[in-house]
Amino acid sequence: MLIAARQLTSEELVGACLDHIAIREPVVRAWSHLDPAMARQAARSCDATAPLGPLHGIPVAVKDVIDVFDMPTGMGSSIYDGYRPPADAACVATLRAAGAVILGKTVTAEFAGVSPGPTTNPLAVTHTPGGSSSGSAAAVAAGMIPVAFGTQTGGSILRPASFCGIVGFKPSFGTVNRAGLKLAAEGLDTIGLMARDIDDVVLFWSALVGRGLAPLAPRATPPRLALFRSHHWNRATVDTVNAVEGTARRLEAEGAVVEELPLPDEFPELSRARIVINGYERARALAWEWAHHRDQFSPMLSQTLVQGWSFSSENYLAAIRTAERWRSWFAGAMEQGRYDGVITASVNGEAPEGLVSTGDASFQEIWTILHVPTITLPLSVGGTGLPVGVQFVGRRLADEALLSLAKWVTQHSVPVPADLG
Amino acid sequence: MLIAARQLTSEELVGACLDHIAIREPVVRAWSHLDPAMARQAARSCDATAPLGPLHGIPVAVKDVIDVFDMPTGMGSSIYDGYRPPADAACVATLRAAGAVILGKTVTAEFAGVSPGPTTNPLAVTHTPGGSSSGSAAAVAAGMIPVAFGTQTGGSILRPASFCGIVGFKPSFGTVNRAGLKLAAEGLDTIGLMARDIDDVVLFWSALVGRGLAPLAPRATPPRLALFRSHHWNRATVDTVNAVEGTARRLEAEGAVVEELPLPDEFPELSRARIVINGYERARALAWEWAHHRDQFSPMLSQTLVQGWSFSSENYLAAIRTAERWRSWFAGAMEQGRYDGVITASVNGEAPEGLVSTGDASFQEIWTILHVPTITLPLSVGGTGLPVGVQFVGRRLADEALLSLAKWVTQHSVPVPADLG
Repeated sequence: MLIAARQLTSEELVGACLDHIAIREPVVRAWSHLDPAMARQAARSCDATAPLGPLHGIPVAVKDVIDVFDMPTGMGSSIYDGYRPPADAACVATLRAAGAVILGKTVTAEFAGVSPGPTTNPLAVTHTPGGSSSGSAAAVAAGMIPVAFGTQTGGSILRPASFCGIVGFKPSFGTVNRAGLKLAAEGLDTIGLMARDIDDVVLFWSALVGRGLAPLAPRATPPRLALFRSHHWNRATVDTVNAVEGTARRLEAEGAVVEELPLPDEFPELSRARIVINGYERARALAWEWAHHRDQFSPMLSQTLVQGWSFSSENYLAAIRTAERWRSWFAGAMEQGRYDGVITASVNGEAPEGLVSTGDASFQEIWTILHVPTITLPLSVGGTGLPVGVQFVGRRLADEALLSLAKWVTQHSVPVPADLG
Repeated sequence: MLIAARQLTSEELVGACLDHIAIREPVVRAWSHLDPAMARQAARSCDATAPLGPLHGIPVAVKDVIDVFDMPTGMGSSIYDGYRPPADAACVATLRAAGAVILGKTVTAEFAGVSPGPTTNPLAVTHTPGGSSSGSAAAVAAGMIPVAFGTQTGGSILRPASFCGIVGFKPSFGTVNRAGLKLAAEGLDTIGLMARDIDDVVLFWSALVGRGLAPLAPRATPPRLALFRSHHWNRATVDTVNAVEGTARRLEAEGAVVEELPLPDEFPELSRARIVINGYERARALAWEWAHHRDQFSPMLSQTLVQGWSFSSENYLAAIRTAERWRSWFAGAMEQGRYDGVITASVNGEAPEGLVSTGDASFQEIWTILHVPTITLPLSVGGTGLPVGVQFVGRRLADEALLSLAKWVTQHSVPVPADLG
């Protein structure tokens, strides 16, 4: 908006990002590819032309499993060292058509899985930033970039966003085009956005899906929310319990209705189905790499692929049927309770110490396999002062309603500042 | 089987294919890339090693929107002249792991759309082979290759298979991995198989999805079939009417029950939803090409993309909801009638004369958007002696049951010989 009004140039904004990167990157290590001269040139080109669209001149970062035609795609694997893709991914080209400047590529865990890259948590250097969209979360949290693409197959947007204290949004499965994304598990992979606030998410999401520029319709009334603890509640630390229950109480005080949604007995089968779908699909998606470069896989991913090849077609079809049954259950539960959304845990606690693991995906994976839109908001802090996100889940294909809900929530609670570092 | 028993070498089989190609290819023009020396070398390697899997030494052709790492991917567009992909697509690597030899790439219509390549119908040189899997259908029908990959977004497997007199199988959406496929419209794109008989389809499909080697369970009883004419029946020529009704009568004589499934009034909205989903998704999937190489698109595809960009997010979501509603309707109708499958038209008639259009997708597109498995069998001939396929449709995820049904049908009717040329 400032750029459109000529109160700020794209070159100034991109320059500010690059300056910030120069200071923080040696420790944060969020970027897998960055060409400052090229970024400045792209910004100058924007400043010299009439605005193409609502994102005119705004820089954005791209997770390194998504193709950008004039940058390498590394996928967090030495197998793809130096690989140059032939074209922009659909999501990248769509943002460019709206005027955005692609600043660079951000570190991904190996093939958007669990084996981490070098990125550290900008809020606490010895703690994981989460993964697999590690670089995108860290870059946004460190103030290096306003918005970044992430992808989620298990918990790869919501978890790093929670650990880094930013907003992470996974749209409804199938609504953000995946052409040019290196598929991990195609029945689960979803492209989403990570940003410092909900308004930036809305701006970029609107451009991505062709929604137009109208602001979100504000909620006329406080929402009806289902509090759903899931079968993973025993994994929640006191920080997570406080985040979810504390937020629920604050929102009730603001007029929201919060009702407990009971856990169905058979619900845990959904997590087992996710293991089968994830493994079966990842094994096939990486079949060529497995045949030609097996020694370049991490032990963790190798294990997933070996397990994936062990699943039969019958296992896979049964898992899809299980997932579809719970998608129907969720739609029915939301309908029956007339809920505007679910409030639940984003993560099991603060970002854990250590860079070997990207953390526990339990609280995120449920909503990925259910194909519903979901967002984490940085609404709480844990015992050591690190952020703990709270997750809000919407009905499938009702992404705009979820974003309106998230906006209402941010206006009726006190968010944690994103950058404590 | 003959190769496994050492009664035939892969080099002999591949050599026979190459000899046949040398004779027919100058007129049929089914191949976009073929390197006979490399193919012979791959076959010799197979003969020199222990069998890798059930497809040991068998050649297969790959539609040129699917990546093969040691061949160019052309996509039927000059934009990708000379492009070399970094890896095999998942489906290609999976067949190679089962021992298959990739013979070459077959001609696709531009980006798996409607603007044809140079391929002619091997049964009648002045007639279209159908599209967009034109080269795969023609190569199989001309006896150049036993099996080929196709993809279907509208009618791109079933229509060319019908026009060329072969078997064309589109599995349930989402069950054959698409990593390494150039996406056209990702909510519709499905990878499938084209072959001269149902047994070859079963063999390759089993290897693709990890089903194992057990033969199909034969049907114990004649099937219950729903005859569904759809809202496109007014497009059916007398050849199509004869094909469908004649086959239905023959199957009834063999003990099958055939009941008419009435057309719901609102059913035509499904075709309108397909236009929106197809356009919205194709526009995004080709956003980079549209920005950088607009002058290299055909007028027909340009028109689709312009229309695609005109659809809003709301249009797209409404179309997805419409599709999901009819998917539920179909599942319910099959359940309620206890049907084993649907019998319907594959195409509106024989392959039309002329190479400018690949024909009418009306009878195929319905089943693509419904995400159900479907197969065309070459069971009839039209007035000028060209083949007319008959389509059988199964329940979603019940692909094996559909293949068993198709096997029963082929055993209880007299198929048309595939190669009249």
